[in-house]
Amino acid sequence: MVAEKSAAKTLIRSRIAERLRRLRLSLSGLSADSILVSSLPSIRYLCGFTGSSGLLLVESSGSTFFTDSRYTFQAREEVAGARIQIAKHGLLRAAGELLRRNTGHRRVAFSPGSLTVSQKQALELTAGKGLRWVPDQSAVEKLRCVKDASELALMQEAADIISRVFEAVLPLIRPGVTELGLAAEIEHEMKRRGASGASFETIVASGARSAWPHAQPSSKPLRKRELVVLDQGAILRGYCSDMTRTVFLGKAPGRIRKLYKAVLDAQQAAKAAIRPGVKAGYVDGAARAVLRQAGLAKYFTHSTGHGLGLEVHEMPRLGQGDEFVLQEGMVVTVEPGVYVEGLGGIRIEDDVVVTAQGAVDLTNASRDFLEL
Amino acid sequence: MVAEKSAAKTLIRSRIAERLRRLRLSLSGLSADSILVSSLPSIRYLCGFTGSSGLLLVESSGSTFFTDSRYTFQAREEVAGARIQIAKHGLLRAAGELLRRNTGHRRVAFSPGSLTVSQKQALELTAGKGLRWVPDQSAVEKLRCVKDASELALMQEAADIISRVFEAVLPLIRPGVTELGLAAEIEHEMKRRGASGASFETIVASGARSAWPHAQPSSKPLRKRELVVLDQGAILRGYCSDMTRTVFLGKAPGRIRKLYKAVLDAQQAAKAAIRPGVKAGYVDGAARAVLRQAGLAKYFTHSTGHGLGLEVHEMPRLGQGDEFVLQEGMVVTVEPGVYVEGLGGIRIEDDVVVTAQGAVDLTNASRDFLEL
Repeated sequence: MVAEKSAAKTLIRSRIAERLRRLRLSLSGLSADSILVSSLPSIRYLCGFTGSSGLLLVESSGSTFFTDSRYTFQAREEVAGARIQIAKHGLLRAAGELLRRNTGHRRVAFSPGSLTVSQKQALELTAGKGLRWVPDQSAVEKLRCVKDASELALMQEAADIISRVFEAVLPLIRPGVTELGLAAEIEHEMKRRGASGASFETIVASGARSAWPHAQPSSKPLRKRELVVLDQGAILRGYCSDMTRTVFLGKAPGRIRKLYKAVLDAQQAAKAAIRPGVKAGYVDGAARAVLRQAGLAKYFTHSTGHGLGLEVHEMPRLGQGDEFVLQEGMVVTVEPGVYVEGLGGIRIEDDVVVTAQGAVDLTNASRDFLEL
Repeated sequence: MVAEKSAAKTLIRSRIAERLRRLRLSLSGLSADSILVSSLPSIRYLCGFTGSSGLLLVESSGSTFFTDSRYTFQAREEVAGARIQIAKHGLLRAAGELLRRNTGHRRVAFSPGSLTVSQKQALELTAGKGLRWVPDQSAVEKLRCVKDASELALMQEAADIISRVFEAVLPLIRPGVTELGLAAEIEHEMKRRGASGASFETIVASGARSAWPHAQPSSKPLRKRELVVLDQGAILRGYCSDMTRTVFLGKAPGRIRKLYKAVLDAQQAAKAAIRPGVKAGYVDGAARAVLRQAGLAKYFTHSTGHGLGLEVHEMPRLGQGDEFVLQEGMVVTVEPGVYVEGLGGIRIEDDVVVTAQGAVDLTNASRDFLEL
């Protein structure tokens, strides 16, 4: 176990050195001397720590990782590329004190979206008035959204797990099983296949409830002649997958088949629109145009997709008019859907990686319309 | 299904009316005209919404709940006691616009710990300069920490689930099974017994890793002559349980048995110290004194417990010197532990409700030292 950990740590160290080099480049663009990283997935990305309490201060002279005493041993095992400081009176106070003592910090970048108003006040109180706080949400997030080869390999594995889980539970999708019961089987299958957990609470939404895009599973049993939306994702060593399939219990009426075909066409159009250099809004527009032509635009009530990685929702967002430019190595979901109150909902979602050749699917369970 | 929902909603409505009445009383203490609630568990508590996107503005004239279009149908089904507004351009913008239009709002309370710096800026930008923002973290949290009879009944059920899950997985705790495999079985058992999910990522930490108080389960197999810490909780209709037991694989050496007894004695001392009117720090001190007498104070690296309810960590915190006064109806964990690097860790945790007669256990799996 110890040898395995050490090898992993060496590998992490070399990646982290490259990530920190690129982060420092972006800092000079912000004219900041240092950056205080407060989002846990970003901290994991930059130093390897997987626990639930951490702060990372990245300076040109090196990095300092702050955690509390519960994580003393874990930090020693996991953290690469940063000094470890166990904070006795709160992480923010420890970071603030270091900033106050270190007179080299005049401009400190921070993420306004990953720090609460209280946390910011605590920092300012300890760090003193000599500092200039530079809000910048995206320095680390921009690095994170382009995945390296090792990340893509993990994400392919996480996607394979969820594709196989869906196939494994197909025989269980039948009248009588409850939404919660089916969700439990899906999450158990993920873990049996090596996932550390679910990327989000698995959605199993049947009948009229399938028209709720983010329905939580309930004790409602599945019934004949119902749509069932299954939205599920697995976490493998921190990286998320996220896949939706929609099936019908029994022989579907023509209207449902038409809706399904329109959503699948919209998904294919969005995938076909993906390549390095296009704007996120262009991909969303491609899906939306197909549904508009089918007279279904008003039933498509969310955006076409989102970035995926150490978080299940990260940069970029594939939304209407979004100007973000896609790059090779980004991983996004493509998930158009239609939701008709009373009738139900249909969503088809895959994870794809942006390559020079266009979108390549990571998730690969069948997208055929299944009448079970 | 529809009839059942309506009955539940009526029940929720009457509770919510009482909660809002008490919240408005505390607002007048803050001299605030309204309160913007941004924490999802608090929103659930005050209007019944269980989704992941919401904001609630409570005014003396009524309440407005904001969500996005993904939750249109779900909000209609779930929300009681508030008008529903579907925000087209972001929840914060919608709430800010309502505040700007409504000239009756001069002082708006908000939770600085449940709002990021970005979110606060977005609100201020839309709401305009005529408002005074009054930071107040605890108005809703103070209401939430005293549970009513229906909440206590649910929490007893959530605690029963986790107690029975622990007993059910005992035969699986043996050399060869991996930490992740065992955690998967524990979470599957929770769901089989009606939980909607785990309160937090189940901890199974064995051998040297058991000395990490917050270890995530790994692919490490359990081995003979190891301590195994199992920390697990189930969510039932939003309410959390949280229970830890520590077992030994094989016949334990005398030192381990002594450590276990010291931790159990510390836990009993803390429970015995609990009654309405005592300070949280007094309960922590009772556990800490027992471990100090046993020469183990330095190995007890966290606080004695925390409040439990719609969140797995909520008010109060049972930490050193904490001045918070316990009241009847509060639910807290009592979980002293010792962590010795190299040897391993021992933690014993129960959920208890504060009653006039003292602490009453909600979790009730055996606390005997189990040598498996």
